[in-house]
Amino acid sequence: MLSRQIKDKLQGLSTPFYLYDMGLLRETLKAAVDESSKYGYKIHYALKANFDERIFKTVREFGMGVDCVSGNEVRYSIESGFPAASVVYAGVGKNDDEIRYGIEQGIFAFNCESRQEMEIINRIAGEMGKVADIALRINPDVDPHTHKNISTGHGDSKFGISYKEIEEVAAKLPELKNINITGLHFHIGSQITTMEPFINLCQRVNMLYKWFTGRGFRLTHINVGGGLGVNYTNPEAEPIPDFKKYFSIFAENLDIDPAIEIHFELGRSLVGQCGELITKVLYNKVTAAGSNVAIVDSSMTDLIRPALYQAHHAIENLSRNGDKGIYTIAGTVCESSDIFAKGIELSAPLRGDILTIKTTGAYGSAMASRYNMHDLPKAVYSDDL
Amino acid sequence: MLSRQIKDKLQGLSTPFYLYDMGLLRETLKAAVDESSKYGYKIHYALKANFDERIFKTVREFGMGVDCVSGNEVRYSIESGFPAASVVYAGVGKNDDEIRYGIEQGIFAFNCESRQEMEIINRIAGEMGKVADIALRINPDVDPHTHKNISTGHGDSKFGISYKEIEEVAAKLPELKNINITGLHFHIGSQITTMEPFINLCQRVNMLYKWFTGRGFRLTHINVGGGLGVNYTNPEAEPIPDFKKYFSIFAENLDIDPAIEIHFELGRSLVGQCGELITKVLYNKVTAAGSNVAIVDSSMTDLIRPALYQAHHAIENLSRNGDKGIYTIAGTVCESSDIFAKGIELSAPLRGDILTIKTTGAYGSAMASRYNMHDLPKAVYSDDL
Repeated sequence: MLSRQIKDKLQGLSTPFYLYDMGLLRETLKAAVDESSKYGYKIHYALKANFDERIFKTVREFGMGVDCVSGNEVRYSIESGFPAASVVYAGVGKNDDEIRYGIEQGIFAFNCESRQEMEIINRIAGEMGKVADIALRINPDVDPHTHKNISTGHGDSKFGISYKEIEEVAAKLPELKNINITGLHFHIGSQITTMEPFINLCQRVNMLYKWFTGRGFRLTHINVGGGLGVNYTNPEAEPIPDFKKYFSIFAENLDIDPAIEIHFELGRSLVGQCGELITKVLYNKVTAAGSNVAIVDSSMTDLIRPALYQAHHAIENLSRNGDKGIYTIAGTVCESSDIFAKGIELSAPLRGDILTIKTTGAYGSAMASRYNMHDLPKAVYSDDL
Repeated sequence: MLSRQIKDKLQGLSTPFYLYDMGLLRETLKAAVDESSKYGYKIHYALKANFDERIFKTVREFGMGVDCVSGNEVRYSIESGFPAASVVYAGVGKNDDEIRYGIEQGIFAFNCESRQEMEIINRIAGEMGKVADIALRINPDVDPHTHKNISTGHGDSKFGISYKEIEEVAAKLPELKNINITGLHFHIGSQITTMEPFINLCQRVNMLYKWFTGRGFRLTHINVGGGLGVNYTNPEAEPIPDFKKYFSIFAENLDIDPAIEIHFELGRSLVGQCGELITKVLYNKVTAAGSNVAIVDSSMTDLIRPALYQAHHAIENLSRNGDKGIYTIAGTVCESSDIFAKGIELSAPLRGDILTIKTTGAYGSAMASRYNMHDLPKAVYSDDL
């Protein structure tokens, strides 16, 4: 993904750091906005994917809203200049102060994850003398065919209101005078790479939309969540996800009154490919079992996805383009799980070589820790090189 | 573990936070020091377990040294008043600046993890006109019978110098004039709860000690690492680990000249039980599959062990002592992996109840992240209550 020109400029920089290809980011955002606007769809950026300031500022320039999952994210969005009316607040564990802040600011909607949360928001809004707009997050029980840790829409998940509860919820709503149900929200999981789960989702959405409108609820929007995957195996083959196909699936399969706004929450698909973790090889060793290990100067504190989800990230040696061998790329943390890749093929990663760990723009720096007292990862932006 | 008096004082505090029982910490440190001194053994605190300032200060009061795994940890130890001569620096990925700093400060030893690292330290010490003391970390290929992520001494691990390489290493050492081999270092893993792996370790240590001294190496210390586990299932039954038994195993099984110092690196066993993560129930819900879920106001950003290692932590409802039921305790993060415990038995955790997640003094706050833009966890110390 990196041009020769950018690669050459990396050699002198102190590693490790996230390199953000801002040109690719802009192209990706533009592609997503262009394809979604064909159908009048709106995109909220899933801030949890990456809260880097410059990335977030770039997202704002493309006119997207924000999908927040914590009070801090709501505050950060508003303080970063996003209009409150473009901010959605989802998440299973909103506390009272966070809810109060959201109501005070007049955010677009709370995506309500349980019956009890509806009651709490209603009570708080009542105390404030306000009416809060909410969308019901309904767990559609659709299998997203993705890693279990990032699958959120199955029947035993902690997320959303169970489809079994909707009768009760609908019966309860008229009593709750300080919330106004304006939408329905769905999210089945993340890193979904086939279209079938989205087609299944559309069918559930159509059904639930009819169910609610049939009972007299006047909805203004449907939020179908996100989940579009990126190509971790071969990022060069697909630097920008196929937004055209993705949005067309919804256009073909949703059966919703055109007056209703359709919202999407995209994170990984917008920022995943624009980030690479640049790291330097410190040591080479051979284990007693015969594995060739390259120890790099980054670790799971910068990128925890391999340790946490056994995630695969393509790795390339930027310093050498010779005969390839089989190597394990290990991080510096004192844990056996701190391995970026086991037994992958690349040009011999020798001490001093610069490696790139690709497709790390999403859920990379956002999940960083200071374990082993490591510094938090730095960021370098292609625009500055 | 918490006294009624402490429990009562928690009700008014803003959650979540780590509660550190400083009395228990002191008792634990005292027990470890008392038992180890019977044999003249020295303990280095494994700082990676918890770098909280007050905990670290308390450790210092008990006269322990520090086992560091990063340059930042070495710096923090020295700046916290630990004598450089009590600081050991291990870790597979020491960079040049970190090595230079350690040499400059005159730390006790670098635990050298590869042949190449020996050469690098030798070169840097040479440039500085110094001789650096090193211990060779040898991978003894002993199965610790623990979780694979925290098992470090098997034959394909990234840690240490392979036992197959020691001939070569020994042959190489005389050429490296700017390093002085003063010890051997071993560490087979963490959270080891049976004594058998330690007995096996002692046998390997005896063998390798003889091998090196037989070749004329004059060692001053042997570092047998750490790994003593704590009781996660029933912490009340064992608030202080059985240090008496642990150290006696080494006394019985090591066959080392008494003039040689024996060093231990303990982390979890010193601080694990003294910490509890205190959190409040925000919401109750029932999934379509019928699970009773309590959403609490903490998450994997405060404590990642359940998500990362499928670790079990005992959880108790501090606000209620009634009929028990089966509950899933879920965190606030937008990930299905953010579950503290699935289907455990406890007194109904209802909204507003305070729960404690036990045995979180080690690898709790030390691994915290700001994912979802969460604040880092706060700490409350029993001494202040």
